[in-house]
This record gives sequence, structure tokens and C-alpha cells, in this order.
Amino acid sequence: MPQYSDLETAINTLVTQFHSASADNSPTLKTDEFKGLLSSQMPTMVQGIGTDQGLSEILRKMGVADGEGISFNNFWKLIQSVATSQYGLLSSQKGSSCSCILL
Amino acid sequence: MPQYSDLETAINTLVTQFHSASADNSPTLKTDEFKGLLSSQMPTMVQGIGTDQGLSEILRKMGVADGEGISFNNFWKLIQSVATSQYGLLSSQKGSSCSCILL
Repeated sequence: MPQYSDLETAINTLVTQFHSASADNSPTLKTDEFKGLLSSQMPTMVQGIGTDQGLSEILRKMGVADGEGISFNNFWKLIQSVATSQYGLLSSQKGSSCSCILL
Repeated sequence: MPQYSDLETAINTLVTQFHSASADNSPTLKTDEFKGLLSSQMPTMVQGIGTDQGLSEILRKMGVADGEGISFNNFWKLIQSVATSQYGLLSSQKGSSCSCILL
């Protein structure tokens, strides 16, 4: 079995976490499945999805139309926005020795 | 210190790997730094970047203009395309019990 790099393992984790959140192995997640994924995996975002309004806002930003399932590409937009803001935090710590604990 | 979920840790890894590839803590990577990152972290892609033509092609797909540095958003496009193809592989294994080793 090959040995994976940290980066490859990270990509694999993102993919498999999304995949395993679908009870029926569907290409899209139902809203409840998506909420379960965020609650367990991104607890700092749970406040936002705790209300119907907060959840709608997040789904809208992810490009999910009303009543539609959440695709991997929708999910990816969310991850991108989290990653980009983390990257902004790191970049603003100029000259620091990058302790790399961000979330 | 808080405990991070697998998903949060994965996002953190993507961000810090990109960040640490820059020798001078710059917001963009030089071409050589980018090649170093891919060689060490995504060895399966090294064949592609081994030639000038292959490298140019990858940079073009990432939206990097000639002579420009590689931004986190450029890098993110590459990760997205890797992740999306991994996700496609998983989704096509219908009914399988998701062994989740992909890369």
C-alpha cells in the first residue's frame, strides 16, 4: 500500500467525510445530512446553521437552490471560504514562526 | 487547546502546506517553490510538472498568468480538481462499503 503525503491525506479526508455523510451513498446530501456533517466536523460553524435563517444563508452562499441536495461542489465552496479565511490569518502573521494552529 | 475534527485538521493541513512552501512568507509561491510543494506532497503529479510544457499546462489550468506567482486561490483550483476527481471515483463505487483509500 502506498504511503500518502500530508496533503494527499488531507484531500482524501475532505472527500471521504463528505461521502460518508450520505446515508444512501447518494451524490448529494440531504439538508439534515449536511447539518449532521457540519455539527460533528465543523462545530464552530454550528451556531450559523442552528437557525433556519442561518442555514438558508449558508446554503445560498454555497450555491444550493431551494429544496435541492448539497453536491460536492457546493460543499467545496464552503471549504474554500473557510480555507481562504484561514490562509488570510496566516499571511497576516508576518515574520512569525507559523505555529500553524488556526481553526 | 481545542480538539479539532478530522475535517478541520484537513483544511488546516492544506493551508499550512501551501503557506510553508514559501521561503519568504510571501502570499504567492514562486514557480520553483510550487514545484517543490508538488514534488514532495503530490508525487503522483510530478510527471506532469517534470517538463516545461506540462508545468505550463498545469499553471494555465490553475489560472496563473505567465511570470506571475501562484496564489492560494490558484492552488485551491488544483486541489479542487484533484478532490473532485477523487469524489467521482468514490461515487462511482455504488453499493461498495467505501474503503476510502483513493489517492
